[in-house]
Amino acid sequence: MRKDEPMPQQPDITLVTPTAPIAVATHGGRAKCLQRLVRLDLPVPRTVVLSFDTVLEIANGQMPDAGMILSQFEPGVLLCVRPSSEDPDWGGPGAMMNVGMSAERRDALAATLGEEEATRLYLRFVQSYAVHVARLDPDEFEETEAAPDVALAAALRAYEDEMETPFPQDPAEQLAGVLRSMARAWQGTTARLLRQAKGAPADAGLGLIVQQMALGQGDCGSGVMQLASSETGLEQITGRYLGRSQGREALGGASDVLYLERDPRGPSLEEALPEAFEVLKQHSALMRHRLREEMQVEFTIQNGEVFILDGVRVPRSNRAGVRIAVRLAEDGIIPREEAVCRVEPRALAELLHRQVAPGAERDVLGRGVAASPGAATGMVVFTASAAQAAAARGEACILVRRETSPEDIRGMHAASAVLTERGGMSSHAAVIGRGLGVPCVVGASELRFQTRRKQLIARDGRVVRDGDTITIDGSTGEVLAGAPRLIEPVLDDAFRKLLGWADEVRDIKVRANADTPEDAETARMFEADGIGLCRTEHMFVEADRLTVMREMIFADTTEERRDALDLLLPMQRDDFRDLFRIMAGKPVCIRLLDPPLHEFLPTNRVDQQALAEALDRPLSEVTRRVEELTEYNPMLGMRGVRLGIALPEIYDMQARAIFEATIAQDGGEPVVPEIMIPLVTAKREVELVKTRVDAVAAEVRTRTGADFDYKLGVMVETPRAALRAGDIAPYCAFMSFGTNDLTQMTYGLSRDDAGRFMSAYVQQGVFPEDPFHTLDRDGVGELLTIAAERGRRAAPDIVLSICGEHGGSPESIEFCREAGFDYVSCSPFRVPIARLAAAQLALKPKIV
Amino acid sequence: MRKDEPMPQQPDITLVTPTAPIAVATHGGRAKCLQRLVRLDLPVPRTVVLSFDTVLEIANGQMPDAGMILSQFEPGVLLCVRPSSEDPDWGGPGAMMNVGMSAERRDALAATLGEEEATRLYLRFVQSYAVHVARLDPDEFEETEAAPDVALAAALRAYEDEMETPFPQDPAEQLAGVLRSMARAWQGTTARLLRQAKGAPADAGLGLIVQQMALGQGDCGSGVMQLASSETGLEQITGRYLGRSQGREALGGASDVLYLERDPRGPSLEEALPEAFEVLKQHSALMRHRLREEMQVEFTIQNGEVFILDGVRVPRSNRAGVRIAVRLAEDGIIPREEAVCRVEPRALAELLHRQVAPGAERDVLGRGVAASPGAATGMVVFTASAAQAAAARGEACILVRRETSPEDIRGMHAASAVLTERGGMSSHAAVIGRGLGVPCVVGASELRFQTRRKQLIARDGRVVRDGDTITIDGSTGEVLAGAPRLIEPVLDDAFRKLLGWADEVRDIKVRANADTPEDAETARMFEADGIGLCRTEHMFVEADRLTVMREMIFADTTEERRDALDLLLPMQRDDFRDLFRIMAGKPVCIRLLDPPLHEFLPTNRVDQQALAEALDRPLSEVTRRVEELTEYNPMLGMRGVRLGIALPEIYDMQARAIFEATIAQDGGEPVVPEIMIPLVTAKREVELVKTRVDAVAAEVRTRTGADFDYKLGVMVETPRAALRAGDIAPYCAFMSFGTNDLTQMTYGLSRDDAGRFMSAYVQQGVFPEDPFHTLDRDGVGELLTIAAERGRRAAPDIVLSICGEHGGSPESIEFCREAGFDYVSCSPFRVPIARLAAAQLALKPKIV
Repeated sequence: MRKDEPMPQQPDITLVTPTAPIAVATHGGRAKCLQRLVRLDLPVPRTVVLSFDTVLEIANGQMPDAGMILSQFEPGVLLCVRPSSEDPDWGGPGAMMNVGMSAERRDALAATLGEEEATRLYLRFVQSYAVHVARLDPDEFEETEAAPDVALAAALRAYEDEMETPFPQDPAEQLAGVLRSMARAWQGTTARLLRQAKGAPADAGLGLIVQQMALGQGDCGSGVMQLASSETGLEQITGRYLGRSQGREALGGASDVLYLERDPRGPSLEEALPEAFEVLKQHSALMRHRLREEMQVEFTIQNGEVFILDGVRVPRSNRAGVRIAVRLAEDGIIPREEAVCRVEPRALAELLHRQVAPGAERDVLGRGVAASPGAATGMVVFTASAAQAAAARGEACILVRRETSPEDIRGMHAASAVLTERGGMSSHAAVIGRGLGVPCVVGASELRFQTRRKQLIARDGRVVRDGDTITIDGSTGEVLAGAPRLIEPVLDDAFRKLLGWADEVRDIKVRANADTPEDAETARMFEADGIGLCRTEHMFVEADRLTVMREMIFADTTEERRDALDLLLPMQRDDFRDLFRIMAGKPVCIRLLDPPLHEFLPTNRVDQQALAEALDRPLSEVTRRVEELTEYNPMLGMRGVRLGIALPEIYDMQARAIFEATIAQDGGEPVVPEIMIPLVTAKREVELVKTRVDAVAAEVRTRTGADFDYKLGVMVETPRAALRAGDIAPYCAFMSFGTNDLTQMTYGLSRDDAGRFMSAYVQQGVFPEDPFHTLDRDGVGELLTIAAERGRRAAPDIVLSICGEHGGSPESIEFCREAGFDYVSCSPFRVPIARLAAAQLALKPKIV
Repeated sequence: MRKDEPMPQQPDITLVTPTAPIAVATHGGRAKCLQRLVRLDLPVPRTVVLSFDTVLEIANGQMPDAGMILSQFEPGVLLCVRPSSEDPDWGGPGAMMNVGMSAERRDALAATLGEEEATRLYLRFVQSYAVHVARLDPDEFEETEAAPDVALAAALRAYEDEMETPFPQDPAEQLAGVLRSMARAWQGTTARLLRQAKGAPADAGLGLIVQQMALGQGDCGSGVMQLASSETGLEQITGRYLGRSQGREALGGASDVLYLERDPRGPSLEEALPEAFEVLKQHSALMRHRLREEMQVEFTIQNGEVFILDGVRVPRSNRAGVRIAVRLAEDGIIPREEAVCRVEPRALAELLHRQVAPGAERDVLGRGVAASPGAATGMVVFTASAAQAAAARGEACILVRRETSPEDIRGMHAASAVLTERGGMSSHAAVIGRGLGVPCVVGASELRFQTRRKQLIARDGRVVRDGDTITIDGSTGEVLAGAPRLIEPVLDDAFRKLLGWADEVRDIKVRANADTPEDAETARMFEADGIGLCRTEHMFVEADRLTVMREMIFADTTEERRDALDLLLPMQRDDFRDLFRIMAGKPVCIRLLDPPLHEFLPTNRVDQQALAEALDRPLSEVTRRVEELTEYNPMLGMRGVRLGIALPEIYDMQARAIFEATIAQDGGEPVVPEIMIPLVTAKREVELVKTRVDAVAAEVRTRTGADFDYKLGVMVETPRAALRAGDIAPYCAFMSFGTNDLTQMTYGLSRDDAGRFMSAYVQQGVFPEDPFHTLDRDGVGELLTIAAERGRRAAPDIVLSICGEHGGSPESIEFCREAGFDYVSCSPFRVPIARLAAAQLALKPKIV
């Protein structure tokens, strides 16, 4: 024998007993579960399991002696063969029942089951064997109206015609055929790709389960029972029972199916077989308790006796998942920590937003990027002002724009959902949409946007006009015609309880990005630990303020500029006072003005004309100023601290507004404001701004006689700021990483322009993930690590955090915990997800 | 005495003798030079020097005993006091002559010099003492038409009126006043700022020199002699002599001044005092030889005897500087290495371009950024095509644009100079201008550009119309009216010799960025070691190609795209063949297409209309495509390798053109082409492009049966590529750092938009330098170091270099040498500068 040939192994064919060596990793989850049921002394029919290795050998042509398997069972029984993979989500071939059926068996069964029933069983076996094992044309073996004996004869004839051999009568030959067919199906390319898409490894194994079938006289049948609702997770006995059925046939909708519990809608198992029902309930409860999970129980009743054939996790909606986990913990079955770990954080997103009802018809007009989750229905409007008008009339509307800009914010607030032609996951519309919790589909270039003519052309040519009703599904990226049924979001007690438990173990803070009082209210509702990023630019785009802001931009002298800013001061102060009141003692981090000034100026002729009139200046001057301020690469232009240094009066005003609002807090625990300088690249920038902010604080203290505290820090958004963190940190109480911009600059890639090729890039595997979606640990992450390490060395007490889109994702939270950051900050609507993810990460090393 | 009070020091007043302790660092350069002259046994009048410390104490009010100084001289002599700073460029107070002059001395001198001359001497001393020491109103002490004795009486009276004390008659009092006045002048704020601007440290010291004056009867006078021309550096005795004059009066333009050598223009010292002339020539030659420098000698002749009062470095033009250094080396006075080190690399820039003649009148219309050095005169044109038309007619023209784009390149080639309204040192116009060696002024917002009306409005309101003649001075940033006199560039034998010597010691290669055959010719002329960056996009904007390129962009299918590219292939191949021929065996690094496609499309309606006609497509389709391709931040968009992956046919075509051109080389040493992938961020990008390029190479080899070699590498322009260099390097033969883009991304700052605030930022000290001008060692530099280290660890033989604007600057070369890079690449016109700078850096540790 050559050295590199594998040793021929003994096939691993194991009878399921309490002590047999069966494991999920070698025999699959179903096999292990059956062994657990056996250990619980539940009435499980005799079962034999084949290990992954054995099944793989079968697929490769090494069939073990099927007779040996049969020898584990009483002669003459019928067998059922089912798959058992490591994870039930990975799929697998369908079950094969009634293996062992033959003319001889049919005749024998006719005595107990009756002629017709016995013939029908044989017929069904021939049909499924022909199609699934012999791979014959399913059309030849369809169910017919013919009597069972006529149909059986036809099926046997068809089999023999096609296979040029009679239908196998030897149970061992049948069993071998079934095992080989299931083993090979698992190795098929499609099956492999499907399970790999669900996260299965390339070499995922399949176990097979051979179980004796229960077939009896009289009160025989099968069914499925579970003790909790798949929809809500509430306690509720659900399932069906069907006499003279096998497997899951009871769920097939036959007319003589029984409810389980007594039910006004029809007859029930409880009434028909009260003792069996009671036993079944006890078995189910025992399984729930001892398997520590809500189980869906597959059972048969044979002559009044209950057999448990299989148990699987109750399938569940995300909402039910939360409640099931909480109820198991409340019933003392699992510890709270485990309940916290049982819910996938991202699954919470669905609970926070309306959804298109699972069964509703979807008339798809076109698709785009699913940029902000949730669904909403409304009439189409094409301008922000039309959206505001609709909202004023109390009408739901969908704001449709080529792309959005800060001028559209009021309209986005007013709209039920937003749809744009351009942009990707990180476009303005997407970021703001997620922040507001407004469903949003962006980059919907399948549709043609004729915004001037106020219409959309669907991909099939249908025309959607201003005022027509459509539905945006921000969770799938679909634009739907009309108003499919939606289901409401739920923040029920189970949700709150689970997150409360999560908070008990969580060891990193979760703040919210919140720009407005509405955002702050949402942040409170989701119990954020504070505001991690308040973007002040949104405060300048409300109608009355925008005009003053523009006056400021057009000011010819420092005095004129200061006059305009003086008008903005009280408005800003009120903004901050509102935020402080809502956040009541929790920290609030305010970013000084960041965007380039041209974002505040109108881009089209009509609005420029209006502005010229408002400012009482010639139109030519307005257009010239707009042109002057236009930038080649606004992302890399005159913004952030550069603006603060060029026009220091702006930051002076903002600092004054913050301090005056701080003083104006009445009662309760006061907020200590945090002032954040954006787009820093060098120490000296921080030094200059800090000097002025400190001077403003001194001035306010002197003038008012009031004392107050504040913190000053920077947003680290440029690679250079990260590299120079050691210089910068000594001037800062905190450094917060703006990973959106940092990702843009590290990749040299604008999030607004990336949409054009990002999906192709990810599909081709050029990037493993969209770095605007999942933090790029290797590149951007290294800059974060460098900055954290250097910043801490220079200023050991510095507070570190990330804000920006990545803040809420579990991967980023994991990164931040490992790096020892103090908090993450994310959209208010992602706060619950982040709280849960953080808790799971804290628990991970304890559980494993 | 308190401990922290400084020890009172003995004043350091030293007689200049061969062995006296005099050093440049303590007494200044002039003092040290005089000691050297004494050591050479030259006839230097008795001289005493005061150290920096002593002069500082004088400024602080601690005057040493002036009598002690006087005691070093014979009684009754007149003294001259001159400054002696560490570096002559740092300035200093003017010399004071005739200290010790008084009524009594006047009377004594009248006997030897005559009444009038003696009176005149006294008068001049009173005048300069009153103005420079007593700080009286200069108007009161102007030269008058009056007879000397009348003027003297008036001056003495004016002094006494103002000072309320008679003019001091005691030489010690006079000397003390002069020393105090000069010491304090050095500490004045203006003087301090002026010298700091020239690089002097804050505590730069001043020494003072007190020298006995030569005053005699008969053939007495003074003058200045040098043995080389300040203009050309050629051997030529220059200078003047004036009888009965002092100091440098001979250079003042008096009518009875003498030439030194026999001269057809007038009488000479050689004729008047042949022996003294001969002695003077010998002294000058001795000084040149022993002081190892061309010296300007200040001398007096007293009764036929020559005295050497002072020697300073011959002032020199940059051109003369080169020749002087070369001649000193050729004469064996200094080693070649020292000659190489004596020329400031940046000074060469002036030699490579025409300049406005130093004395020419400058009628300034407005100023902008001096973006590409040199001066040019021509008629104003406002479009690239007008520039080409003018060039076709053989007329020099200045291309005036708001800003330039790749479409303007042909026009820029055709123009003598370029002027733009927008942009900074790194704008398109500036970069291309420097590359082409075309003088360029950008960001000239002092002027109003009315390009549609085809006129410029000067800052004083004058109108410059299409066709008017102006001059652009790209070295100063000035736009001048008319045609001031220009002087020609010189690449003379001295220049070539010096750079040849530089190459002998240089240990880092210098390549040129060259896109066209013209650029390559320039690179050869300046003896570049190869082409480090050939940007292929410039090859697509020539009229005939642009149309095909646009067809490619509008192609609906891969086949259509490939058809268009097939038309471009032979043109590209010819481009490369030309480059290879010109570079004859030197390496040529070709960057694959980099800019976003929209740069190739017209932006205005008229051109779009024309394009629609040319492509036979509706205008709406053209505008839609232009709109679709428009980007928010083109710098961070769909460009570089992203384009190469999205539309792989483009790089396929370019690779094919490169390989076919490689094969087509006939005779001579063949060029091994280097193919560079732009804007890389991840390993997989390189892998994908490399696979296709290798496949194209295999295809060309199979089809032609010819073999050839090539190298593939990447341009590292994104921070991420630098951080991930370890992953990327194994796929690359070389990595070249594109420091322009890397700086933009590291700072989050677009070079096109930075102009708006960069000068203010540098002035405020926010950034010590414009990082687009001087490589930012702390931020960008660290990324380079990280990448080099990781790249080398993964691929020890990898070739490292920088290309881009920083490539030619001495600071970057220093950085690259330290980091062990293989070459730098820069504009062809900077190659000589880089060669010299690199040589100096190689010599630095040896010389010190």
